[in-house]
Amino acid sequence: MGSPDEQIHPVATGAAAETAAQHQTPQDLIFYSGWFCPFVQRTWIVLEEKGIPYQYKEVNPYKKEKHFLDINPKGLVPAMEYQGKALYESLILCEFLEEAFPKYKPQILPSDPVDRAIVRIWVDHITKFFVPAYQRLLSAQEKEKQEGYLEELNQTLRKLTDHVKGPYFLGDEFSLVDVAIAPWVLRDYVISEHRGYTRIGVGAAWKAYAENLEKRPSVAKTMSQREYLADIYGRYLRDEAQSEAAKAIRAGRTIP
Amino acid sequence: MGSPDEQIHPVATGAAAETAAQHQTPQDLIFYSGWFCPFVQRTWIVLEEKGIPYQYKEVNPYKKEKHFLDINPKGLVPAMEYQGKALYESLILCEFLEEAFPKYKPQILPSDPVDRAIVRIWVDHITKFFVPAYQRLLSAQEKEKQEGYLEELNQTLRKLTDHVKGPYFLGDEFSLVDVAIAPWVLRDYVISEHRGYTRIGVGAAWKAYAENLEKRPSVAKTMSQREYLADIYGRYLRDEAQSEAAKAIRAGRTIP
Ligand SMILES: N[C@@H](CCC(=O)N[C@@H](CS)C(=O)NCC(=O)O)C(=O)O
Ligand SMILES: N[C@@H](CCC(=O)N[C@@H](CS)C(=O)NCC(=O)O)C(=O)O
Repeated sequence: MGSPDEQIHPVATGAAAETAAQHQTPQDLIFYSGWFCPFVQRTWIVLEEKGIPYQYKEVNPYKKEKHFLDINPKGLVPAMEYQGKALYESLILCEFLEEAFPKYKPQILPSDPVDRAIVRIWVDHITKFFVPAYQRLLSAQEKEKQEGYLEELNQTLRKLTDHVKGPYFLGDEFSLVDVAIAPWVLRDYVISEHRGYTRIGVGAAWKAYAENLEKRPSVAKTMSQREYLADIYGRYLRDEAQSEAAKAIRAGRTIP
Repeated sequence: MGSPDEQIHPVATGAAAETAAQHQTPQDLIFYSGWFCPFVQRTWIVLEEKGIPYQYKEVNPYKKEKHFLDINPKGLVPAMEYQGKALYESLILCEFLEEAFPKYKPQILPSDPVDRAIVRIWVDHITKFFVPAYQRLLSAQEKEKQEGYLEELNQTLRKLTDHVKGPYFLGDEFSLVDVAIAPWVLRDYVISEHRGYTRIGVGAAWKAYAENLEKRPSVAKTMSQREYLADIYGRYLRDEAQSEAAKAIRAGRTIP
């Protein structure tokens, strides 16, 4: 018996279950998913946006089973097998899909090199500042710390929002910035219910952008039902989670 | 008067000074450099590898001068101005150069999408694990912590080395993985002199790879003389540095 994180609901539910059910046939590309995982959802959104053929396989990454560690030695979802080769890291997988399937549209990176760099700068901002702020806020126990981390999280989102053209980051085109942040928009109800966050507290522009993201079909159809997330988030909220991300935040290390 | 980090030698020296001197003419692409900075050196290596025309401008990023914050609001070097547009983040700049100047060789990313993803996975490993380990080791004061962090740093390098084909990461081709790690190879004498690190302590394969990297002309000609780095590293070694990276490590945050 390992950590309580192993005790998660085993499969996707709701809209995500339907999407997974449509992708059971063997394909060149196998997508190793954890239905609950926001990093997974990034890659899943891109697969669905582009309509790339893929086979969905559910993994419980907390179990660190050998067959999965052979695919991703870091033991994290998402991962992929493509023509027998193993790849991982959500954002790298998104760029991989863009490059390996150039005929499948939409492109999630613009064609102009300067614009591509700008998209990457804001994706990097999400990785380095927003995601750690979200994790810290989730697991903070004292009221004072929660307030400080909430303000920090709001700041990271305001900085991002200042560059959102609307309806999406680049305007009408859906891009990797939208992909990178959308899964946390769908999960922001957790910090609303438990940590005093509100979308309007970040700002009206963020609220409008967040609403556009959650309405995007690829985003909605890769999300499971909230009730099954309650256990997982309960452990984060009590600072009892034993995930790699939780351990990294506790130790003051970079999230892996 | 700001922090002591502002008191750095103002310009590149040695081989790097010669390279900078050859790039003073105005060009479409302005490279904002700090001669001492390993992140800067990554981008500089790519400029030199490819022979892209650029204008070299020396910046002291610790001064946070307005003209520079207008280019990079994060106040960090390297940064770039290209046809009037401002870009930053060393690795994003390297990919930008690859995409904006496709005719300038060598390509630092392979053409196969799977291989490109593998390169990005190991660059990500350097960012998330090696660079923080190096910073922690530099600034650790107690003997016991230094030993722990040294072992951690060695582990991050062994993991990387396991995937090095030799002479470079991908074999004969010089790639973004080599670019991402090379500046720290040139600076590993600091942790040899002060923290008990040796290349052979990591392993014979690492030692051989490190020697190949430091011999690469683009790497050698973008490095200044060691003596001018002594002040800067002195502050890190005494844990007195006030750089964004030093503050992040102290606070248990992601390096910006
Ligand atoms: N940087 C990774 C993070 C992936 C990640 O943390 N996935 C979590 C689930 S949300 C996981 O697999 N955790 C297993 C564990 O922590 O042991 C990515 O972007 O893909
Ligand atoms: N993630 C950035 C890091 C750049 C960075 O930290 N540069 C340092 C010099 S080595 C800097 O400009 N420091 C100014 C400061 O810390 O205030 C990159 O890869 O470009």
